[in-house]
Amino acid sequence: MRILNSIPKNDGFHMPAEYEKHYGCIIIWPERADSWQYGAVMARKAFTEVAKAISGSEKVTVLTSAEGYDTARELLPENIRVIEMSSNDSWARDYAPTFLKDNKGNIRGADWYFNAWGGLDDGLYFPWDKDNKMARKICDLYDIDVYNIQDFVLEGGSIHSDGEGTVLTTEECLLSAGRNPKMTKREIEKKLKNSLGADKIIWLKRGLYNDETNGHIDNICAFTSPGEVVLAWSDDKNDPQNEISKECYNILSNETDAKGRKLKIHKLPQPHPIYMTKQECDGLIHFNGQPTRTEHERLSASYINFYISNDAVIMPGFNDKNDKKAKEILENIFIGRKVIQIYARDILIGGGNIHCITQQIPIFYRNPTC
Amino acid sequence: MRILNSIPKNDGFHMPAEYEKHYGCIIIWPERADSWQYGAVMARKAFTEVAKAISGSEKVTVLTSAEGYDTARELLPENIRVIEMSSNDSWARDYAPTFLKDNKGNIRGADWYFNAWGGLDDGLYFPWDKDNKMARKICDLYDIDVYNIQDFVLEGGSIHSDGEGTVLTTEECLLSAGRNPKMTKREIEKKLKNSLGADKIIWLKRGLYNDETNGHIDNICAFTSPGEVVLAWSDDKNDPQNEISKECYNILSNETDAKGRKLKIHKLPQPHPIYMTKQECDGLIHFNGQPTRTEHERLSASYINFYISNDAVIMPGFNDKNDKKAKEILENIFIGRKVIQIYARDILIGGGNIHCITQQIPIFYRNPTC
Repeated sequence: MRILNSIPKNDGFHMPAEYEKHYGCIIIWPERADSWQYGAVMARKAFTEVAKAISGSEKVTVLTSAEGYDTARELLPENIRVIEMSSNDSWARDYAPTFLKDNKGNIRGADWYFNAWGGLDDGLYFPWDKDNKMARKICDLYDIDVYNIQDFVLEGGSIHSDGEGTVLTTEECLLSAGRNPKMTKREIEKKLKNSLGADKIIWLKRGLYNDETNGHIDNICAFTSPGEVVLAWSDDKNDPQNEISKECYNILSNETDAKGRKLKIHKLPQPHPIYMTKQECDGLIHFNGQPTRTEHERLSASYINFYISNDAVIMPGFNDKNDKKAKEILENIFIGRKVIQIYARDILIGGGNIHCITQQIPIFYRNPTC
Repeated sequence: MRILNSIPKNDGFHMPAEYEKHYGCIIIWPERADSWQYGAVMARKAFTEVAKAISGSEKVTVLTSAEGYDTARELLPENIRVIEMSSNDSWARDYAPTFLKDNKGNIRGADWYFNAWGGLDDGLYFPWDKDNKMARKICDLYDIDVYNIQDFVLEGGSIHSDGEGTVLTTEECLLSAGRNPKMTKREIEKKLKNSLGADKIIWLKRGLYNDETNGHIDNICAFTSPGEVVLAWSDDKNDPQNEISKECYNILSNETDAKGRKLKIHKLPQPHPIYMTKQECDGLIHFNGQPTRTEHERLSASYINFYISNDAVIMPGFNDKNDKKAKEILENIFIGRKVIQIYARDILIGGGNIHCITQQIPIFYRNPTC
C-alpha cells in the first residue's frame, strides 16, 4: 500500500456510482453497547440479513473486533469473509475508504479524516481514533494504494456520485461547524472535485429531519442512474420533513448535472414517524452517563438508505404502511435488479441504515496467479 | 470459507515443498513481553529485515494486534501488507495453516490444534487460544477453504514435505506426551499421510539439542530438493549435538523417500553454542513470575532454520565463525537462489528462528476480476 499525497483527479481517478459493477462490499460488525441495544443481538441478525442479501452477487467482507469474531463467524454464512479490524463503531459507509477507480482497472482508496460526525462540536462519540484508521487499514487489506486526505473531514454517507462527474451533498453537513469550519464553501467544493474526480457539486440545503449526522445525503436523496435521483418525500404538512423535501425538490428541479442534463426526480414516500420505546432505551448501556437515545425520540428513518448491489437493491423496511409502496417504487426504478426489503428497525436504532453500514468496492483487476 | 471435515488426501490435496513456487508469506508481528526482550524493539527490526528479504520475490503479509499495527506499519515497507489479527505470540510456522494444493491451482488450509508445544504437560505458555484460532482466520482472510483437523495436535515446524509424497518429522516431537498421547505412532503416521497427502513418513528420533519445541524438524533438517536434505552438524564430540546429528545421519542414510530414492545428505555446521546473557534476561518481563529464559541458558541456534522464498534463501546469522561457511554451503545447494543472511539473535531469543516466524502460501489461482 502506497500512501499518496497527490490529487486523485490529476491521477485520473474518480468515484464511480454505486450502481456500477462492484467487486464486493465491506460491513463492520455491530458491537458497541451504547449504539446497539441488548448486546447487539438483534442488530447482528439484521446486519447478517443485509450481508446475506448482498453476498448473492458480490463478495462481502465483515470486519470485527477480536472479541466479535466468534459471533460474526457463527451468524454469517461461509461465503462471507470475516476479518479482524478494530473500530469504534460499525459505519462502513462513513469511514471505510471511498473507493476511486481509473480507466485501467485500478482502484485506490480515499482516506478522509473522520471525527464521529462533528468532533468535539457535535460529534456522537469520543474517541474516534480506531474508526479514523480504518480506511487506511482497509486499503492495506485489499493491497491497494490510498490517498491521504486526512486534512479534510468527510464521511462517505455525505456524498453520492453519479459516476459521470456529478456529486450530490448537503450544506447542512459539509458546512457544519464540526467538520471543516475554516474552509469556505468554494474551497470545500474544490476539495471534493479534486478528491472525487468530479466536475460538478450539487448542494442540497438540508438532509432528513432530525438526522444526527447533520443531514447526510444518503438518508434523503440518491442517484439511481445518470440523470436520475430518488428523493425522500412526505406529503404530511404537519411533518417538518414536508418542507425539507419540497426545498430539495426545488433545488434539484433547477439543477443540471456535470453533463448538462436536467434531473429526473423520483419521490419516495417516507415511513410514518418512528419513535424510540422505553424498552429499546433500556437496552442501551450509557457510556459516560450520557444516554444515546431517549424515549419518544424520533428516529431518522428513510427508505432512501438502501444499498445497490450487483443484482439487487437492499432497502430497509419498518413494518410501516408505506413499506410496500416504497418497495414498488424502487422496483420500477431499478429494472433488472431485485428489490430486497429487510426489517431494519434494529439498524435504525444505532443511528443509520443499510446504506450507512455498507461500503461498495468497485470491480478491479488483480493478478490471477497469486 | 468452507470448513471441511473430509480427508485432504482423498480430496486430491497435498502439502507442496517449500522450494516450490509461492504466492506469498505470512509473518506475525512480535509483541509478547515475556518472549521478546526490551519491548520487542530489536526483534521487530529483525522480523522487518526477514520480511523485506522475502518480499523481494513474493507477497508478504504481516499480522498484528490492534496495538501493534502502528509500529508494524511504520517499520515495514509499503509493499508489505499489515493486517490486524490477534494472537498469543508470533510463530506463523507453527499455527498459521499448513497450506495444501491440488493439481487444479486450488489451495486449502490445514487447521491443526495448537497447544503451545505441549499443552499443560510441557507447553511454553498459557493460554494459546488466539494462536489456535489463527489458521482458520487466515483461511478466512485468503478466502480459501479450511480442513478442520482440530482433533490432532501439530505445529507446522514439526513437519517438512518434499512435495512428492515424503514427509520428514521427529519422534521426540510427534510422540511427545503433550501432543497426541492417546495415539500410537502408526495412527499418527496415518493421520499425517491423510492430512498432508503423503505416502511416506521419515522419522528422525530427536531434534536439535535443547530445543524447547520438543525437537521440531525445522531446526535440524530440511528438504532442499526432492531426494536431498540438509542436516545440522556438529563435529565437536563434547557437544551433545554431535551424537544427535550422527543418529539423524544414520537414519537418513538408510532411508528411501516416497519415490524410492536414496537421500543425498548435506551437512551444515552448527554455530558455536550461544547462551543467554544477563542483559537479555533482564529485558524480558516474566508472566506469572516464571522466567522464560535464564542466564547462561543455551539457545537452540541452527542455520537449518531458514526460509526458502521464490528467489532467495533467507538464513540466520549469529556473528559466529561458522556464519560464512554455512552460507557458502547453502549457496552451493540452492543454485539460482540468492542466500541472504540476517543477524537473528533477536529472533533466537524468542525461541525460534527465520523458518519458525514464516509460513509460505503456494501460488494459486484466483479470479482476476475481483
